[in-house]
Order: sequence, then structure tokens, then C-alpha cells
Amino acid sequence: MKLNGTMRVNEKGHLEIGGCDTVDLAREFGTPLYVLDEMCFRQNCRDYYLAFTHKYAAKVVYAGKALLNLAICRLVDEEGLGLDVVSEGEIFTAHKAGFPVERIYFHGNNKSPAELAMALEVGVGRFMVDNFCELDLLNNLAGEADKVAGVILRVTPGIEAHTHEYIKTGQIDSKFGLVIENGQAMEGVKRALELEKIDLKGLHCHIGSQIFELDSYSHTAEVMMAFVNQIYEETGFCLEELDLGGGLGVYYAEGDQPRPVQDYADALVGAVLDRAEKYNIPAPRIIVEPGRSICGPAGTTLYSVGAIKEIRGVRKYLAVDGGMGDNPRLALYQARYEACLANKAEQPLSETVSVAGKCCESGDMLIWDIKLPRAESGDILAVSCTGAYNYSMSMNYNRLPRPAMVLVRGGRAELITRRESFEDLIMNDLVPERLAKKTTV
Amino acid sequence: MKLNGTMRVNEKGHLEIGGCDTVDLAREFGTPLYVLDEMCFRQNCRDYYLAFTHKYAAKVVYAGKALLNLAICRLVDEEGLGLDVVSEGEIFTAHKAGFPVERIYFHGNNKSPAELAMALEVGVGRFMVDNFCELDLLNNLAGEADKVAGVILRVTPGIEAHTHEYIKTGQIDSKFGLVIENGQAMEGVKRALELEKIDLKGLHCHIGSQIFELDSYSHTAEVMMAFVNQIYEETGFCLEELDLGGGLGVYYAEGDQPRPVQDYADALVGAVLDRAEKYNIPAPRIIVEPGRSICGPAGTTLYSVGAIKEIRGVRKYLAVDGGMGDNPRLALYQARYEACLANKAEQPLSETVSVAGKCCESGDMLIWDIKLPRAESGDILAVSCTGAYNYSMSMNYNRLPRPAMVLVRGGRAELITRRESFEDLIMNDLVPERLAKKTTV
Repeated sequence: MKLNGTMRVNEKGHLEIGGCDTVDLAREFGTPLYVLDEMCFRQNCRDYYLAFTHKYAAKVVYAGKALLNLAICRLVDEEGLGLDVVSEGEIFTAHKAGFPVERIYFHGNNKSPAELAMALEVGVGRFMVDNFCELDLLNNLAGEADKVAGVILRVTPGIEAHTHEYIKTGQIDSKFGLVIENGQAMEGVKRALELEKIDLKGLHCHIGSQIFELDSYSHTAEVMMAFVNQIYEETGFCLEELDLGGGLGVYYAEGDQPRPVQDYADALVGAVLDRAEKYNIPAPRIIVEPGRSICGPAGTTLYSVGAIKEIRGVRKYLAVDGGMGDNPRLALYQARYEACLANKAEQPLSETVSVAGKCCESGDMLIWDIKLPRAESGDILAVSCTGAYNYSMSMNYNRLPRPAMVLVRGGRAELITRRESFEDLIMNDLVPERLAKKTTV
Repeated sequence: MKLNGTMRVNEKGHLEIGGCDTVDLAREFGTPLYVLDEMCFRQNCRDYYLAFTHKYAAKVVYAGKALLNLAICRLVDEEGLGLDVVSEGEIFTAHKAGFPVERIYFHGNNKSPAELAMALEVGVGRFMVDNFCELDLLNNLAGEADKVAGVILRVTPGIEAHTHEYIKTGQIDSKFGLVIENGQAMEGVKRALELEKIDLKGLHCHIGSQIFELDSYSHTAEVMMAFVNQIYEETGFCLEELDLGGGLGVYYAEGDQPRPVQDYADALVGAVLDRAEKYNIPAPRIIVEPGRSICGPAGTTLYSVGAIKEIRGVRKYLAVDGGMGDNPRLALYQARYEACLANKAEQPLSETVSVAGKCCESGDMLIWDIKLPRAESGDILAVSCTGAYNYSMSMNYNRLPRPAMVLVRGGRAELITRRESFEDLIMNDLVPERLAKKTTV
């Protein structure tokens, strides 16, 4: 298993993260447990911040959908990044955490009137408008609130990134954005420029997730700049901001070759500056929206190994006490992960096993075919790079309570999300009087 | 859209369920909203009950993982079915609802010691033991509790049902059960017979979900009966119970041809009785575990249509206010659904659209290519057959609160699960003092 962030193997031969022995963490907080490496998270923020703001006047906006709770909002705020939110619930969370509202970027292909009204009231920095319906709705609501909405219009540049089909979002047949190629994006720009309560700041696109090819990015930047220039030529309006989305690939497992953030920055910025010069227009301020590449490698999930089953000549299954409930990514995307036995981190990798979850569903697997030391019930399995889209996509399938999350740093572990209780599972349940059991237990 | 249960189109041209106008339900309870048709749910329970207990001494056990909350437990109890649970959380729910513990069947490939101890303490009727680890663990824990555990051993008969790969569970390379073919199931039986605190009652298998071919079932019953006979011949022990799982297919969309429950019962029971006679052994009591086929067609989800986007010459997207958060089945299984506009249920189907969710993810689609009347923002979209694996797999992705659920019957709608609040989303979040924002909002 690749060691991310502050991971190391300590003198006991145990996996350590943030100076905390993960075997102790499992004992103290129980399993499954999400462990977040604070310094790794912060370092990833800083890598982005430096790469994009040292040489260029770019903005880095953390994509909260990858992982968000109150404490994460605080870390992102302290690191000086913006926050990309996609719902009223995310705005609520950020607001509760005291995140500066002017640094909030509000995304979504179908924002409700209530969400837009709430975002206007709170005063989010930018509305990333997806479509004509939203543009008109936002203009009306801003009028009612006597405010002007700072808008970035989402467009689809027609790029097909080399990634899993589910997370390809730049192609033309997409639920997101207005298509450049067929003229709808230009219509959107013109309508936005006409609307009184809309202050059009720029454009946004996102070509997908878990992308390793920087060419896709520079090509996208070129397509977007051509459109910025076309807008300038047709309307005389020069856009100030260009949000090129996120999606930089991270290392999950063998074969993944993440590119340095600085190379990514150079590719994006280089393409934009080059085209600005070519078209002789001012270069817009670049915005990027990393999510996974900030929180992904900072997260590790600890599980306890339970039942072990060897089907002779077929496969050996290690079952753990979590699964698709806390990490649905294999079921959703055939995602691959690496793992180690945290309490046997120095032992030789002597057998190939598959890691099953505990849900009553065949698709509930965490890892197919991974080499581990010989495992026994009670061992602690650490799955790496689970910071992104694990907690945020967790569910109570099989009525499994969602795990706790601890923030680790300098040998100290702090609970930032409590484990759900069984009482939590039924707290919203109501039994009509006529159905109530006469003698309750 | 096929009309399930008590669905009808009322004099206003609106979809009605359980005598309630769904447009009124959407207005009163908000959207997205899970609507559960009580009489449809009960009728499905009764169909199973009658089909399996009228002519035969079989038992019907509702698979709670498909849909479970306190009110559902009450319905299942009132209808006289057993309850198949797969976790401590499900046992907790059933117990809180006053469900008779002796009718609880406890499944799972990796039950934890805590879960087994809790189940022993509560006194569940059957432990569906998956593997050797569990057998020994349960025997030890039962010893400590001075109890004897009624056990049904899960085995894999090696049947590959014609269904989606994720929900095929009868094949040999499975995380579930002990394989008959390689002798491990027989080893399991013999070990169970030796263990003092294990009272082996029978065998269990489950060949998958959403199965339309009754041949798969009768073939499975034959394989299982051959094994029952083999056990009898090798050990002299005659198993009393044979649990043949669930998985009968339901109608989601065109092309699905569900078989009548009575035919399913006749196929299963016929095969068992035939083999019992052939082998000259007593026929075991048959147990079946329907989940989806009881709750699936009883559930409908109501959404509000928001943004509508036509990509000229490509596709028209209707975005609704829910999506993969409340129904991840398209993303997980490429599931197909039918839908109608509840407020335009009598209007001609004039356009083909695709229904997108509101999550920031391309994979967040609900239905590809469905014919609907011309839709406008504010219309109510009713997606049918969402009773199974929607609420139970719901998540807070994008920090969307999970929907409410109402039980409808005879014109009355009762809330059985409250909509999550934004406060619910952060109730388990903690911010370490050192990270707290100095001036809180």
C-alpha cells in the first residue's frame, strides 16, 4: 500500500497516521472508522494554493461534495481556499461552520427556488448557473431580494475525458451546462448579459473526474478561451473569470499515475495565457475546483476483519465490518483500492484475498484480489485514499450506522463526526397510533 | 406507467394512491416524497402468505433490507410474516417496533460478536449462519449466554440466475455461504451438528434478485433437496427447514414479466415435495424471503420538476429535486423505472425525455428516455415501484436531506418517516476547539 501523507509504519509494526497508531484508533473509536490526516489535507490545500496563486492570480475552490462536515469547512477556511457547494445542505453546513460566504461558489444543475433564495440571503460569492431556467429564476429571486447575483455560467466544451463514463461531464449529452457547439452557451451568455439582476462574471466547465491526462485540461482551456474570445467579439464583453473545474486524478491503486499539481497548474494557466495573447484579450482569472485530490489521499478507513472464508481453489474472502454502506465506490464505479493490515504492516504479503463488506448484497465488495499478510479475525484492515466520496456517499443500507470520523495530527485524534447510534437510525420514524403495538417493549 | 396497487387517475386527471391525490401529497409533505401504498404492501404480503401457507406449511419471511422502518415492522407483524434482518440496526428497529422476536431471522455474511450477542439476548428465532467463523463464534457466545441457537446454514447451490451480476448470489465464487459442490457445506453441517449450543434446523440459499425464471427456482430446490438427502444419508439427520431465499422479479418497466406468486410457490413447493418423495425423506418446511416483491410495487416517489434543458438534436433533460441520493439504483444497477407526471396523468405522452437528479454527478440519472406529457417546472413526477432499495439505500450525497415517507390508505396520508432537517445533517459533527471560528455565526 502506498503511504500517503503522514502515514508510516511505527516501531510496533503498526500503521501510523498523524502520529496516531491506527490499531489504537480502532480500539478507542471502534470500526469502521474514517481517519483524516490533517496535515495531508492541509498540505494538499497548500500545494494547490501555491501552484495556482504563487505565479498566477488564480483561485482554488475546494469541492465540498467530495467530503464536507463542519471541521472540514474550518480546515478549508484556514487554508484560504474557496468552497464549492452544491446544495442548501452544504451551504447550511458551511454557514454553520462560519465559512466566509463570499468565498462560497454555488453549483448544481437543478437548484430549487428555496436554495437560490437561501443562497441570496446568505450572500454566497458566486452562483454557477447551469441553464436557462435557473438564469431566469435567479434573476427574479435576486430582484425580489433586491440583490445582484454574481454569476458564472456553466458550459459544456464537448471534451470527452478518458475516465469512467459516470464521471465524464464535459461531453455534449450531459445534464450539466449549456453546450458551446450548438450555440446554446452563447444564447445563455447573451441572456445573462441582458438580465438586470445577473452580474455575469465568467464561465465554468468540468470535464470529469480522476483524470490523469493534462492534455485534456489544456485542450479544454483552449476551447474555453476560444469561446471567451467569441463572446468578446460578438458582445464586446470580456469575461473576468474562467472556472476550469476539477478532476485531477489521484493514486488509488497500482497503475494510477497522478500528475503533480504544479504541472496541472502550468498546463491550465499556460493554455489560458497563450490563448489570451493569441486572441489579444485580457486573461481571465482562473478558478479550479479540486475535491478528491485534496481530501482523497488524506482519508483512510479502518475496518475490523471478521469472518474469513476460503472457497478452495476459487477465492479467499475476508469480510470486514463495513462495506458499501461507508464506501459505495466499488459498487458504483468499480473503484480500486489499496489496503494493508494495520496491525501487521511489516509482515510479508503472503496471500491474495478479496475484501467483502458485511452488507447482504453480492455487490458489496471493497477490494478484489489484494495481497495481504495472512489475516485473522480481529485484524485491522486499513483501506487508503478513502477521503473522497466515502463519507459523503455513505448510507444506512442494511441499517448499518455510519462510521465516526477522527482528525489525526501530531499524535492526537479528535472526533469530528460521531458514529451514528441505533437511536439515530429511527429518530425520524413515526408509527401511526392505529398501527402501534399494544404492548410496547 | 403501469398502475400498481391502489393507483388510479382521479377526476382531476391526477395520479391517486391510496385514495390520496399525489399532487396534494407533494404540496402537503414536500418533495421528494416516498409514498407507500398500505393496501398494496399488505396485499403483497397476503398473496405470499396465501400462496405459501394455504396449501403448504411454508413460512414467509419479509426481507427487511429492502425497506424497513418502525411502521413497516408493524405492517409485517400484522400480516403475520416473519422478518429477515441483516444487522444489529435492523434487529434494533424491529425490537423497538415490538416485532415478535421469535419470528426474526438473522442473516449476514459477517455478523459481529456484538451483533450475535445482542441477537441471542433478544432471542431471535433463527440465526442464518454463513460460515465456519460464525458457527464457532455463535456456539461460544450461546454458551456464554447459556442459550441454544436455532441455526439455518447458508449454502451456495452453484446456480447462476439470469439477472444483473451484482445480485447473483448462488454461484460458487460468492461471499455468501458454504459451497455444496466442494464439500464445504457438508463440513459445515457436520460441524453444526457437533456443536453443543447450535441447534441445526435447516439450510438456506439465495440465488439472486429480480428473477423471472421459475425454472431457476425449481432447479435450485432440486439441488438443495439433493443435498438435504445427502446429509440424511451421511449423518442420519433430517433437516426440518429449507429456506429458499427470495428474489422473485417485479415489474419496473416494459419487458419485465413478473410471475404470479402462486406459480412461484407451486414451482418451489412442487420441486421440494417431488424430491422428498423421490428420496423418501420427510419434506422440510419451506421458508421464503420476499423483499422487493412485497414492498417494491407499493412504493412511489414524488419529485418536483425543476430545470428543463433541451440539447437540440441530442436530448431533453428534466431535472428533479431528488436523484441518486434517494434512489441510487440506476447508478448502481442500471435500473429502469417508469414514471408519469402526476398532475398531468391523463395528458398524451408527447415527448421523450430523460430524468436527471440534482446531484453534482453525471451518473445521477433516474430514467433514460421516457415518454411523458410536455413537462414544465413545478410538475410532479411520480416514479413507480420505488418501494424497494430506495429509502433503504438512500444517502446524504451532496448533503441532500433524505425524503419523508408517507403511508397512504383510504384517502388518509400518515407520515411514517420525517424528512431529514439540515440540523440532522450536522448533528453528529464536532469542531475541535482549536479549529473553531472565533466569531461564530
